[in-house]
Amino acid sequence: MEKRELLYTGKAKSVFATDNPDYLVLVFRDDTSAFDGKKVEQLARKGRVNNIFNAFIMGKLAEAGITSHFERLLSPTEVLVKRMTMIPVECVVRNFAAGSLVRRLGVTEGLELNPPTFELFLKNDALGDPMVNESHVKSFGWATEAQLARMKELSFQVNDVLKGLFASGNMLLVDFKLEFGLFHGEVVLGDEFSPDGCRLWDKDTRKKLDKDRFRQGLGDVVEAYEEVGHRLGINFDA
Amino acid sequence: MEKRELLYTGKAKSVFATDNPDYLVLVFRDDTSAFDGKKVEQLARKGRVNNIFNAFIMGKLAEAGITSHFERLLSPTEVLVKRMTMIPVECVVRNFAAGSLVRRLGVTEGLELNPPTFELFLKNDALGDPMVNESHVKSFGWATEAQLARMKELSFQVNDVLKGLFASGNMLLVDFKLEFGLFHGEVVLGDEFSPDGCRLWDKDTRKKLDKDRFRQGLGDVVEAYEEVGHRLGINFDA
Ligand SMILES: Nc1ncnc2c1ncn2[C@@H]1O[C@H](COP(=O)(O)OP(=O)(O)O)[C@@H](O)[C@H]1O
Ligand SMILES: Nc1ncnc2c1ncn2[C@@H]1O[C@H](COP(=O)(O)OP(=O)(O)O)[C@@H](O)[C@H]1O
Ligand SMILES: [Mg+2]
Ligand SMILES: [Mg+2]
Repeated sequence: MEKRELLYTGKAKSVFATDNPDYLVLVFRDDTSAFDGKKVEQLARKGRVNNIFNAFIMGKLAEAGITSHFERLLSPTEVLVKRMTMIPVECVVRNFAAGSLVRRLGVTEGLELNPPTFELFLKNDALGDPMVNESHVKSFGWATEAQLARMKELSFQVNDVLKGLFASGNMLLVDFKLEFGLFHGEVVLGDEFSPDGCRLWDKDTRKKLDKDRFRQGLGDVVEAYEEVGHRLGINFDA
Repeated sequence: MEKRELLYTGKAKSVFATDNPDYLVLVFRDDTSAFDGKKVEQLARKGRVNNIFNAFIMGKLAEAGITSHFERLLSPTEVLVKRMTMIPVECVVRNFAAGSLVRRLGVTEGLELNPPTFELFLKNDALGDPMVNESHVKSFGWATEAQLARMKELSFQVNDVLKGLFASGNMLLVDFKLEFGLFHGEVVLGDEFSPDGCRLWDKDTRKKLDKDRFRQGLGDVVEAYEEVGHRLGINFDA
């Protein structure tokens, strides 16, 4: 597979075509952004850490029967993925209240959500990624009812698998965001799963080990991501 | 039925107990509020107009088989209703884009929504009535899954009935908000249906005939509500 022209520069990754129309190369950069791109910084090693972390998670999901766009790592910062038509709606599962849910509903951070919540956000930086619901997805044609049902089913399956995985490293999976796309007509998990798009807390101390360290200026951002990886047995320098 | 003590003073109505624990008296006041109570004015005749309007609509819904808390008018500003435990979630159906949907999703006012959307808002002025979704309703215990399904079913039934009714007066039912409660365990339509809680446009000119006249300072607010009533054959001075 040969890397060809740059197709899109996102906030954290760059997307390249390949010589096969069914595949793309994603390059994980060190750029870190928050608040719809209003806070941006370069954090050394973040591209490498997230790429390798994501490959590990996608592998675990595949073992559990959840297929994703992930094909193989090409380098510490590059991954080969299936080229998809992305569905412009982010799926968020929450096991504990944090972030925008706390602000929106005035609940206490850390409140356990039982059953976990499932939220949808329109992927649109200009509008500030507004919350939407299932009827909007249908009325605006972002996905069919069947595709949406599949996205929801897969999101909860991912939650079940990853809650257990992070628990094995003494961490709470507080919440996470997934993006899905269509590959040859099928709904497939895309984008990335990394501490950039989820919340992870140490189970005992509730120390934040995710992008909230960046949002809240707590420091040691990539160090925390690496700690998460080490707890799961990931080697970022292999 | 005897009117007893004041139980609650809302933004537009006052709620009184009766000598029967299964019934309440709602008194429609002239107070008109918008923006979570930040803009408030007294509009002469509004209490009378909305009470009589609501009685007419609840009658039309009953004819179509949709029962509500409505029992009977007690005076031009007072209505006897079933006393319910209210479900703190407002149901909004939209046939055309307007208001917060336009702001949230950046779509054009007047865009037809097909199928109509169904939205939920937590009834909480302090939080600004935030949008919530069906999973929040379950996780926070605001209603059971079956109750929520019934609220949704009834909301769409109300839409079907009222779209036709307003069309007969050459009006478009743009959107509306409903509140439901539990009466002896059953989900029943409560609160009011009036131009305070819906959007109605003249079909030809798209002239606004609802509370947007108040929100946007267009004037002739109650005059517009009365025009809506007259188009449906309502007599507010009988
Ligand atoms: N398999 C895929 N096929 C096509 N596009 C993808 C795939 N996986 C992720 N993407 C898209 O590539 C972009 C990744 O770059 P990112 O920096 O995350 O961008 P953004 O700023 O849009 O979030 C995203 O827009 C994401 O939706
Ligand atoms: N049948 C009913 N039983 C009990 N409460 C009701 C019933 N119908 C409406 N209510 C409640 O009574 C209040 C009506 O007054 P309103 O001025 O609309 O108040 P608010 O400012 O809370 O919207 C609302 O809180 C509404 O939820
Ligand atoms: Mg992204
Ligand atoms: Mg009210």
